[in-house]
Amino acid sequence: MPRILSMEIMENRQKILLAHGSGGRLMHSLIGQLFQKKFSNEILDELSDSAVIELLASKGGSCSLCFTTDSYVVRPLFFPGGDIGKLAICGTINDLAVVGAKPLYISCGFIIEEGLDWEVLERITESMAQVADTEGVKIVTGDVKVVEHNSADKLFINTSGIGVRGEGVNLCKKAILPGDKIIINGTIGEHGLAVLAARGQFDFQTEITSDCAPLSDLIMRVIQNSKNIKFMRDPTRGGLATVLNEMVSEMGFGAELFEEHIPIKEEVKALCEILGFDPLYIANEGKVVVVVSEEGAEPVLELMRRHPLGKESQIIGEIVEAPKGKVIMKTKIGGTRVIDMLVGDQLPRIC
Amino acid sequence: MPRILSMEIMENRQKILLAHGSGGRLMHSLIGQLFQKKFSNEILDELSDSAVIELLASKGGSCSLCFTTDSYVVRPLFFPGGDIGKLAICGTINDLAVVGAKPLYISCGFIIEEGLDWEVLERITESMAQVADTEGVKIVTGDVKVVEHNSADKLFINTSGIGVRGEGVNLCKKAILPGDKIIINGTIGEHGLAVLAARGQFDFQTEITSDCAPLSDLIMRVIQNSKNIKFMRDPTRGGLATVLNEMVSEMGFGAELFEEHIPIKEEVKALCEILGFDPLYIANEGKVVVVVSEEGAEPVLELMRRHPLGKESQIIGEIVEAPKGKVIMKTKIGGTRVIDMLVGDQLPRIC
Repeated sequence: MPRILSMEIMENRQKILLAHGSGGRLMHSLIGQLFQKKFSNEILDELSDSAVIELLASKGGSCSLCFTTDSYVVRPLFFPGGDIGKLAICGTINDLAVVGAKPLYISCGFIIEEGLDWEVLERITESMAQVADTEGVKIVTGDVKVVEHNSADKLFINTSGIGVRGEGVNLCKKAILPGDKIIINGTIGEHGLAVLAARGQFDFQTEITSDCAPLSDLIMRVIQNSKNIKFMRDPTRGGLATVLNEMVSEMGFGAELFEEHIPIKEEVKALCEILGFDPLYIANEGKVVVVVSEEGAEPVLELMRRHPLGKESQIIGEIVEAPKGKVIMKTKIGGTRVIDMLVGDQLPRIC
Repeated sequence: MPRILSMEIMENRQKILLAHGSGGRLMHSLIGQLFQKKFSNEILDELSDSAVIELLASKGGSCSLCFTTDSYVVRPLFFPGGDIGKLAICGTINDLAVVGAKPLYISCGFIIEEGLDWEVLERITESMAQVADTEGVKIVTGDVKVVEHNSADKLFINTSGIGVRGEGVNLCKKAILPGDKIIINGTIGEHGLAVLAARGQFDFQTEITSDCAPLSDLIMRVIQNSKNIKFMRDPTRGGLATVLNEMVSEMGFGAELFEEHIPIKEEVKALCEILGFDPLYIANEGKVVVVVSEEGAEPVLELMRRHPLGKESQIIGEIVEAPKGKVIMKTKIGGTRVIDMLVGDQLPRIC
């Protein structure tokens, strides 16, 4: 259930709460008030999915090194459509891809709770290796720590990744203008619900499967074939609503969503109604939000629809002049509502 | 206390044991039988402290990208001489430095147990920032996850790092030859004992402080001033004995240590005697083992001694033709003993 947090709790700087890891407002306050403040530099301050380092100048041209990290603490370790290992490799690949980089090298840090079955670790590393192989990414370095029983919950995995972004690719929020279209490559809300269902907390069964997938092939195709791409993000923790809020926050524009164009599976809609969740805030692990100029939108949409991971792509909204810094939704019945960032999170530990 | 593990347990592939994270034989078997098998590629298979990627060819010259990762699970979070944050940044800097790379960029992944004091996180990030600043390293990307109470032990930190290794620097085991000298930059065993003491498990007080320190300045100075450096490693988890065993394992040479030349503080010696520990197996976090050709040894020793972190440097042994693949020690009383790799570990969760 959504955790309702008052402003008082939000300003609480005494204890770290679960919601500080939620992707919502509290997480942004933790990052802004602590990590960014302490570690501030021009690369970190971009707060991008991957750090972009203008490091390597070769003859005539230039390219950038992109660097990203994520720890995975999903519970349970296995869920319909994936497991913590697949999630980690896909997540790192996607964080590099959305900044326009070709993912090349990945590191893995395992924190294992004493007593974990060897066979579990075997299945998880197998699925990591499979995704890495298919995507042409190499796992080049790693680390293993084992902690006592009850000092961790079975297994946590950190993956960090390095990618290279070619000359001329420069995706950034500053390029976004009113009139630009917002495209998503398919249906939302599946990952979060699939993980929740795998916890066995429902009294009913569901067929919902995580959308967990590596997006670099789809994204590289889009970037190579269109000069009109402004910005991309993968709507993971906090869902589509959070990613769009991050995008417009403190910018001179807003985003308007068309409710009827947002692709959502019937099962997801139904389950969300029963549980009182809003699918806009549920994590996805195989989705990308693409902002593209008006003239580029239709060709990019067609291109995405021809890719196996983009068949259900839709233009779901556009960039608007006002309200600045806000995400609003045109509802099916013709109304308008503000889509705010959550304070906490609906679902902890889904990634 | 040392965990005595029979060969039977060692071959147990049913459950992950604490000892699988120890730095000893069981960890090597987990890495070899699982991770390396699944993820195998020419870069990973080097099993170096940092992956070395021959990626970047610029005009005329060449340089390598080095990439490393480590998760830190030390308990307690604060100990005499450091904390988990300082440990993480120093550890990553050192892993890059020992392969000859200049550390440049670091990522941080925090896994926080719900309820951790904000102030604790503030102190830890402050000490991370301090080391990074002093060493000219930028923290460029990060991630925060929060898990429920009892699903982690207060705080785990993963740091991954990127460094660049200049042309002509090529440190590898294959360059080592009989006659080469083994140098260490100071006294051993302090870090592990300082952490143990901080757990309050002793009935007595000790003044021992962790040696936790960033070694890149010392190491860069050595590399820039000597063409005779063959190989370097930082003797962390598993201590000096483990690092030397890893170095000679499956190679056509062995290592001989001179017991009387190994620098150990009196307090460390005394405490080890009381507790039944062997300081050769205790983790260090500010030490580097340097293998240098015979003719280069004295100048390198002098150079190291002029550095604040190398004042107590010593030539502690040499590379020998036989026994191949083994580490032996010439004891003070004139005997010889084999210094084997431990199966498990003396001290879990010291890094």
